[in-house]
Amino acid sequence: MIKLSEISTDPPKGLDKKEAREQTEEWARQLGEIHERLIASQSHSVLVILQGMDASGKDGAVKNIFRYCTHNNFGVYSFKKPTEEEFAHDFLWRVHRQCPAKGHLQVFNRSHYEDVLIQRVHRWIDEKRVRQRLEAIDAFEKLIQFDNNTVLFKFFLHISHDQQKLELQQRIDEREKNWKHNENDWKEREHWDEYMRCYEEVLNFGSTPWTVVPVDSRWYRDYVISKTMVEKLGKLELEYPPLKK
Amino acid sequence: MIKLSEISTDPPKGLDKKEAREQTEEWARQLGEIHERLIASQSHSVLVILQGMDASGKDGAVKNIFRYCTHNNFGVYSFKKPTEEEFAHDFLWRVHRQCPAKGHLQVFNRSHYEDVLIQRVHRWIDEKRVRQRLEAIDAFEKLIQFDNNTVLFKFFLHISHDQQKLELQQRIDEREKNWKHNENDWKEREHWDEYMRCYEEVLNFGSTPWTVVPVDSRWYRDYVISKTMVEKLGKLELEYPPLKK
Repeated sequence: MIKLSEISTDPPKGLDKKEAREQTEEWARQLGEIHERLIASQSHSVLVILQGMDASGKDGAVKNIFRYCTHNNFGVYSFKKPTEEEFAHDFLWRVHRQCPAKGHLQVFNRSHYEDVLIQRVHRWIDEKRVRQRLEAIDAFEKLIQFDNNTVLFKFFLHISHDQQKLELQQRIDEREKNWKHNENDWKEREHWDEYMRCYEEVLNFGSTPWTVVPVDSRWYRDYVISKTMVEKLGKLELEYPPLKK
Repeated sequence: MIKLSEISTDPPKGLDKKEAREQTEEWARQLGEIHERLIASQSHSVLVILQGMDASGKDGAVKNIFRYCTHNNFGVYSFKKPTEEEFAHDFLWRVHRQCPAKGHLQVFNRSHYEDVLIQRVHRWIDEKRVRQRLEAIDAFEKLIQFDNNTVLFKFFLHISHDQQKLELQQRIDEREKNWKHNENDWKEREHWDEYMRCYEEVLNFGSTPWTVVPVDSRWYRDYVISKTMVEKLGKLELEYPPLKK
């Protein structure tokens, strides 16, 4: 049972920052190699879901962790407000389309979980619909795993209320971050407690577990995500297929 | 509990063919009107799944039953052997894409059920995969109903072993039907009993019920399908929206 208030958003004491960064660099290189094998073997697909509050560092995670992965067979899809066509379908319609083919690694920057988070916080859907959607998500995630050998990672980027304020303020204060500023992020921030409550329920639901990633120090975010991915994908023992004769 | 061997493939005695045809004509007209209201109200979508053995009359059903529906907001999708891209995804990936938007009526000529029928009969998938897929189908069908107001019809076109032979032979004997002849249909026919066993399990599985349609007389096929659709869609009371002021 995950209780967010009991999980620190900081790195554990005793972990040396410099050593952790070197280790992360090594894992990032390994992820690049694993990605090559994924492309060659065509037996599996990988889906990485990044969820977290505004300014929790989703873009930065993609930038750092996958920097040794080729652009071939790699995609990042950022879920925004649904289009008119998407709204005219069930909430998983647009998500399913973006799922990775065998041999591909796909990152979801936000995901179908928004449909049980922002929509729930603002009461755009009722609690019955929330339950139905959570069940549908669980069945959907099972489907892509059993029927397409998708290795599914679900990362919750766990940022503190204070750290979010610092990050959002930097977007106003630093010239090169101005483009990221969005007045609406400050408004969403007012619903913090409700978001935490809804996130907590999401994190404790379903048959595919989440990894809670403390992100107040960005280097530790990269350390946890790359470690988690290398450990799990390493076990697949993806091999280069032999010469076809 | 549906037992196919106990369900006649003929029309019930006492139903007058001429009267039934007149009634079917009336229902077909009503379906055309209901479809107009569906387009105007934009509140629901309709999905019609047609499943049945080769020559059970799927194309003919589409031709007759929907002849008063406009081509706007109407689609028929025939599922064939998956493409390479489709094979590289889970079996519902290509199906989900084709689901109707609100205001649309979509017909599936064959469907995701092929993935637990032909694939099972030929042992291309094991029994564990069959169970997983049946569960996934049920969750998927629930999803499009609760989250997109899809009215879902599942029709099994119930043809007899003897009638299929007559129909397939006509494709050889009648010049205008030659294009429909496929040697492979005769090979699949050899697996008849196994198909019936697998269909029976499908028909008895899941939370969205099937309608078994006796099709040895084509006029009765059209009678049952149009009746079933008009009755259910009529209850929706789809209305033309008032003038926006």
